[in-house]
Amino acid sequence: MKRRRRPTDDAEVAAVDLGSNSFHMIVARPEGNSLRMMDRLREPVRLAAGLDDKRRLDAAARDRALACLERFGQRLRGLPSQAVRAVGTNTLRQLRAADDFLDRAQAALGHPIQIVSGYEEARLVYLGVAHSIAGDDRRRLVMDIGGGSTELIIGEAFVPRQMESLHMGCVSATQRFFTDGRITEKTLQAAELAARRELEPIAARYRRAGWERAVGASGTIRSVERCLRDNGWSENGIHPAGLARLRAALIKAGRINKLTLDGVSARRAEVLPGGFAVLSAAFDQLGIAHMDAADGALREGLLFDLLGRIRHEDVRSASIAAMARRYHVDTEHAGRVADTAEQLRRMVADAWQLDEPGMADMLRWAASVHEIGLDISHSQYHKHGEYILRHSDLAGFSREDQQVIATLVRAHRRKFPRAVFRELPQYWQRPAMRLAIVLRLATTLHRARTAEPPPPVSATTEGKTLHLALADRGGAGHALIEADLQEEADYIAVAGYRLLTSRG
Amino acid sequence: MKRRRRPTDDAEVAAVDLGSNSFHMIVARPEGNSLRMMDRLREPVRLAAGLDDKRRLDAAARDRALACLERFGQRLRGLPSQAVRAVGTNTLRQLRAADDFLDRAQAALGHPIQIVSGYEEARLVYLGVAHSIAGDDRRRLVMDIGGGSTELIIGEAFVPRQMESLHMGCVSATQRFFTDGRITEKTLQAAELAARRELEPIAARYRRAGWERAVGASGTIRSVERCLRDNGWSENGIHPAGLARLRAALIKAGRINKLTLDGVSARRAEVLPGGFAVLSAAFDQLGIAHMDAADGALREGLLFDLLGRIRHEDVRSASIAAMARRYHVDTEHAGRVADTAEQLRRMVADAWQLDEPGMADMLRWAASVHEIGLDISHSQYHKHGEYILRHSDLAGFSREDQQVIATLVRAHRRKFPRAVFRELPQYWQRPAMRLAIVLRLATTLHRARTAEPPPPVSATTEGKTLHLALADRGGAGHALIEADLQEEADYIAVAGYRLLTSRG
Repeated sequence: MKRRRRPTDDAEVAAVDLGSNSFHMIVARPEGNSLRMMDRLREPVRLAAGLDDKRRLDAAARDRALACLERFGQRLRGLPSQAVRAVGTNTLRQLRAADDFLDRAQAALGHPIQIVSGYEEARLVYLGVAHSIAGDDRRRLVMDIGGGSTELIIGEAFVPRQMESLHMGCVSATQRFFTDGRITEKTLQAAELAARRELEPIAARYRRAGWERAVGASGTIRSVERCLRDNGWSENGIHPAGLARLRAALIKAGRINKLTLDGVSARRAEVLPGGFAVLSAAFDQLGIAHMDAADGALREGLLFDLLGRIRHEDVRSASIAAMARRYHVDTEHAGRVADTAEQLRRMVADAWQLDEPGMADMLRWAASVHEIGLDISHSQYHKHGEYILRHSDLAGFSREDQQVIATLVRAHRRKFPRAVFRELPQYWQRPAMRLAIVLRLATTLHRARTAEPPPPVSATTEGKTLHLALADRGGAGHALIEADLQEEADYIAVAGYRLLTSRG
Repeated sequence: MKRRRRPTDDAEVAAVDLGSNSFHMIVARPEGNSLRMMDRLREPVRLAAGLDDKRRLDAAARDRALACLERFGQRLRGLPSQAVRAVGTNTLRQLRAADDFLDRAQAALGHPIQIVSGYEEARLVYLGVAHSIAGDDRRRLVMDIGGGSTELIIGEAFVPRQMESLHMGCVSATQRFFTDGRITEKTLQAAELAARRELEPIAARYRRAGWERAVGASGTIRSVERCLRDNGWSENGIHPAGLARLRAALIKAGRINKLTLDGVSARRAEVLPGGFAVLSAAFDQLGIAHMDAADGALREGLLFDLLGRIRHEDVRSASIAAMARRYHVDTEHAGRVADTAEQLRRMVADAWQLDEPGMADMLRWAASVHEIGLDISHSQYHKHGEYILRHSDLAGFSREDQQVIATLVRAHRRKFPRAVFRELPQYWQRPAMRLAIVLRLATTLHRARTAEPPPPVSATTEGKTLHLALADRGGAGHALIEADLQEEADYIAVAGYRLLTSRG
């Protein structure tokens, strides 16, 4: 893991979006609460088209992607890691875990790439769009048609209220329903029916929730909007009558390679039929009367999210707190464990390299939710906590972050699950194991669950040996703690670590 | 599965408790809100002692257990299945799944045996004790020291407020700490320390919750109480001073086989040191000043629970409703799905043998909670629902019941998971698969999630083919339903079932 330094307010920050259709990069300088754009790059990598049915990327798509990331990487050279966020979405979510593409992509870019869930993608899209239309306080529906997924969010100001990420996008729909390039009434209808089926389970809820303004981000929507305007089919924005004219024009062209529409680039035309079907189905199922095209999308959302982290308004802490509430965590106890864990971490941070940025956060978050599994059952609750953390939609977290926290919770009691750590990215394996040991000791010291603080303790390490010196307060309580620590020593011995305790 | 008829109020009901130390059977007749005992049998099978470290039962323990169950079975011959509840506890919970002991045990007894969780065991113990001391309204702590687990419950009247089942019992503790039969200050202390460590995580919470009266069930506690009285170490009940006298007597005897204490049978003496250590640790950690011995325990709890089911106060329905609330289920939608599922079940019940008692319940319960997984994430929520149902402590349910409901929820959408059904007991596999198909169709018909009822439908079957005739109400909605049903047809074809739809 790279050493990160926190960027100052006037330093550049950058976001990279490895989308299923295009890769985007933006570089900006924070100015107060907004961003001054310094650079924008977009390359139509068309990653989704390179994914085979075994969820592997073909060579051509890999080459296009890596070449693009190298170019992006040149621009980003010199930016500290903490000033750059790069995320992968639908296609990379689907990529099989064993594929080495992500490692190579990170090397090409020179920065870590995080894969985010559809839910997190929707949140970031909303954040980006909300900033681009700040000042308009109306409740809005935001739509983003990506290459492989489509996000639909209802929100007010900067707060998303409903978020969905659906499995349909302009690249995937075009590939599935317009395989041979023909656009007919029949192929369009089939594509629209499929999109309507995706929308079916959410349509009634979205209609009930309602909105005052519909806003679309993404290339498909901006192209359609421009096309309607340039052809005189709409004065501004997108409406059903304009879509009907475009639909007729698509069928009239008859083939993708014959599509020449004002306002639509040749590149965009290649994926327009699928994108159009998704858009027209949404108008139909959700009863949209009018939609504006907006700038701002995932990548802008990433930057604003990054600014929040830099300025200590980290949405991740709020997510963890919300999760602790939802699963009825005893927050006083969890707070005591978090404090003791942090004390222990500091004592061993130098020797065990647990002072990298992010590590204290991970430990604190894991401590805050280490008991959520109790809400399912006391029996094996560390495993239930792991399950919940692994599968929940946690705003602000990448899949990797969640996996690390889930692993710490899984490992906080009972047998030390060495195999679970091996599933983490290489560079997380050792630090995560050590953070887990710290968390285990903290929970052990608080096993009696009283408000009374545990005996003062000091920790030192020597390689994989941890010496714990406890102030001896005598009494029956001490015998219990000693027995508990002895059991801990046996547990972590399995991972090759040694715990020695002494009365200080 | 056997046909069950509901027993009438004056018919006999029976409970069998396959405990880790003894097997018990009681036969009773309901009289109003109480029970008139007709028969009580107890055999010291000592099942826990026969479990090896590979979680297999040795031949001697199997033989003892099966011979005992055959004797019980003779008494129960002729009782309808619904009038008998037989449950296994800690040792059977630990038994490896592949062991065929349970099949043979059920054959010997002639009735199904359900394995219950520690949590459910605690609930039943409390119910049994609460009935035995009905009339005393004081808040009470109930303790039951079993062969392999110990239940501790705080409750008022018939309502348990805190329930725990700890991994320590008179058989297991005696085996672990008194292996060679010697009772010394040192071996006793080690056993007590281990028990105190088990109690450590719950002690502070239990002390805070408090109680006005402590009541102990189980052979260990009754023997100790009798021993203290018979030796003049207590006028009534158990208190710390009396326990200290007994402790000294145990050490003075020095060996298990030399234990001859007034009030303690030779059989009981064999497991007394472990049971004593658990009891004395509980007095110490929880600060118990006095404990009465009570009649009534798991088996009485089973009978009162059975009476509740017969009289339509089924605690299982309450558990399912509580779970739906806890996981924020859209209960209106779930109710509509449950109604449609029940309509469909009735249409095919004869042909598909889905009219056995319990099946309508299972379907309704599964429909009520089929969306709980949404609380974790929309993505793969049927799997999250399965996880929660498989691992939750659901009052009133056996492990098998929960497994069936979890399987129905797992299978209610997306790919039909044939392998999951193979993990069910043989006699559940076919009906569960068919109930899952019924639930799938009901959720499909309600995919639009509106209050508007789905098109009237009639269902008939011919072997593994299901014909669904839908009233055609035309319009775009019908095309969606047809496409959804077509997808369903593809999904269930994997399980060898055929779905044909027609417009009626």
